[in-house]
Amino acid sequence: MIYFDNAATTRPYREALDSFVKVNEVYYANPSSIHSFGGRVEKLIAQSRKQIAGLLKVKEREIFFTSGGTESNNLAIKGTAIQYGSRGKHIITSKIEHPSVSNTMKQLESLGYSITYLDVDETGRVDPLDVEKAIQEETILVSIMHVNNEAGAIQPIKEIGSILKDHSKILFHVDGVQAFGKISLSLPDDHIDLYSISAHKIHGLKGAGMLFVRDGVNISPLLSGGEQEGNVRSGTENTGGIVSFAKAMRMYMEESRDHLEKMKDIQRYLREKLVTIAGVRIHTPQLDSAPHILNFTIEDFKSEVVVHALDQHEVYVSTTSACSSKKSKPSQTLLSMGVGEDLADRSIRISLSFRNTMEEAERFVQLLIKETAQLQKTMRRSR
Amino acid sequence: MIYFDNAATTRPYREALDSFVKVNEVYYANPSSIHSFGGRVEKLIAQSRKQIAGLLKVKEREIFFTSGGTESNNLAIKGTAIQYGSRGKHIITSKIEHPSVSNTMKQLESLGYSITYLDVDETGRVDPLDVEKAIQEETILVSIMHVNNEAGAIQPIKEIGSILKDHSKILFHVDGVQAFGKISLSLPDDHIDLYSISAHKIHGLKGAGMLFVRDGVNISPLLSGGEQEGNVRSGTENTGGIVSFAKAMRMYMEESRDHLEKMKDIQRYLREKLVTIAGVRIHTPQLDSAPHILNFTIEDFKSEVVVHALDQHEVYVSTTSACSSKKSKPSQTLLSMGVGEDLADRSIRISLSFRNTMEEAERFVQLLIKETAQLQKTMRRSR
Repeated sequence: MIYFDNAATTRPYREALDSFVKVNEVYYANPSSIHSFGGRVEKLIAQSRKQIAGLLKVKEREIFFTSGGTESNNLAIKGTAIQYGSRGKHIITSKIEHPSVSNTMKQLESLGYSITYLDVDETGRVDPLDVEKAIQEETILVSIMHVNNEAGAIQPIKEIGSILKDHSKILFHVDGVQAFGKISLSLPDDHIDLYSISAHKIHGLKGAGMLFVRDGVNISPLLSGGEQEGNVRSGTENTGGIVSFAKAMRMYMEESRDHLEKMKDIQRYLREKLVTIAGVRIHTPQLDSAPHILNFTIEDFKSEVVVHALDQHEVYVSTTSACSSKKSKPSQTLLSMGVGEDLADRSIRISLSFRNTMEEAERFVQLLIKETAQLQKTMRRSR
Repeated sequence: MIYFDNAATTRPYREALDSFVKVNEVYYANPSSIHSFGGRVEKLIAQSRKQIAGLLKVKEREIFFTSGGTESNNLAIKGTAIQYGSRGKHIITSKIEHPSVSNTMKQLESLGYSITYLDVDETGRVDPLDVEKAIQEETILVSIMHVNNEAGAIQPIKEIGSILKDHSKILFHVDGVQAFGKISLSLPDDHIDLYSISAHKIHGLKGAGMLFVRDGVNISPLLSGGEQEGNVRSGTENTGGIVSFAKAMRMYMEESRDHLEKMKDIQRYLREKLVTIAGVRIHTPQLDSAPHILNFTIEDFKSEVVVHALDQHEVYVSTTSACSSKKSKPSQTLLSMGVGEDLADRSIRISLSFRNTMEEAERFVQLLIKETAQLQKTMRRSR
């Protein structure tokens, strides 16, 4: 199998899964229970929080565990909207956010909030000056993703943060789900108030994630209840998910340190080889793009046809994002980048993990060349 | 170890954990991905949904997977409040709901909703006539738990449902987290629109749960995004959690069929023996109470003292609910039942699973008698 759909989800690390099993076999008590069995479980969560805080160089009380990236994004945005809605109802975002951000914005619009959706340039990037221009008296939040999940453009988070430094009443949320561990990040320096991370995108388990909430920032809970997680996120803690998330994060950051250059080499190799195939147009920008994503169109073929041709060889890539792949609408990200509808509708996304190898990339290219040649023949015959 | 804190959480079934591991090792793809690997995972979720629908005798499209009971309750209540807020902003609930309901209500109050909190009688039960009396033109939702998590009273859900049958514009939500699998339930007949179930209370895994939403009922999503779960609950599905939830539910319902009488015997035994201990007052009503909960006070001792005395023998019980246990406030449920503050503040909760044995109950009683006698001595000496 060649699994090139790591932006959709990753294979859990063996060690992360082992941690989950151990917690559920031995430390299954409710961490809120006052007996010593509950206390031992509570300690495990505290340790995980400490480990993650250490890896992110933030305070332990700035880490809030959630059920995943979607919840983190919803919590950040709706939590801000509810908390500060009486002060203002204007939010700034971009046209290329993940659905967990863009559909949250749509829901807020239906509740009376006003949303500015910023354009991106042909490389898929927001202009920080556009953020500045969009600021109103009523603005309470700017939400811009760190790395676009479809085309891979890295957004100018640092620059936007600098601008927002002078607007102390506007919170800055960054959806870091596709960026974390692959793109440099300094939460203490980058003037980010809220940052979302998902466990299953870094070889942790589905059902776990976190939101960084800068010390001093208050947001309303989305899930009210037993007041776990500092009353920002109630619900019995998924201890196994949390412990394995901390383990996965540590391992992922180590792999990033050791294998990021290899990932970039593979991406570069794929880019160089793909452009030699007739009709290939690469949408992922050459500069300032994430190392794991390569988005392209083969002009002659519907993306589904290519995906299924590769599928027969147990080679897995995706069309747009997994979350949008079944809606058969052209990619909003690519359209916003100025890619024509016919091309945007036919895009294919390769997304790598640190464990993918150059051999897999070579085999992928050979297969793609073979399969597209075969498809060309079939097409010519059927004309 | 004697684990008598099963209302807080249960030990996962070995088989449920094995399912989780298998899914995460073999079927880790994103079910939304269009390749065949994703398709196989999607099929697993569809099978789990079908199994659960079969067990609950409802339609597959009435099952919505969530991250747990707290999310299910928040989704049911806030989803209704957002969806029908323009029609009315009045909600009816009781004074003894779980914090995931009562704190959700408080949050809605701060957003302009008006909440009626119904009293309960000395057995901890809501009077269905009080529900009827509380209905206003503006009422959009009634939310009453099935079994109280602290004292164990079964609420007259069927009767409330009958009343609401004549009010087609009022939705009926039931928090079934403590009831499911132990109390008779017929979702097709009981006129319930929304019913919450948590996996980790029935030996499934933390991080999984579901909300039953009756066909034809629309609620707003709490988590917006990739439109998974019929757009009611977005977010990459926790496939392992879902598959193991279906497995746990089947096993739990089988154990319930085979061992419910044994559980009742153990509860009866504990009740009979506990009342022979000096100063013991039992709060769980004799009639119409759940088979797994027994709530009592030993007049002379703070609950923490008793919990810790038992803890030394690896015997685990709780004070109030796990979710409230660290707040050291007297139980709101017991106060509402007319129990005095001094007694309510000293309550202890035993909660059983189908796997607890009569031998454990016997040993528990012996230990409690021994430890309270010891504590009495220590107290007398220190006077």
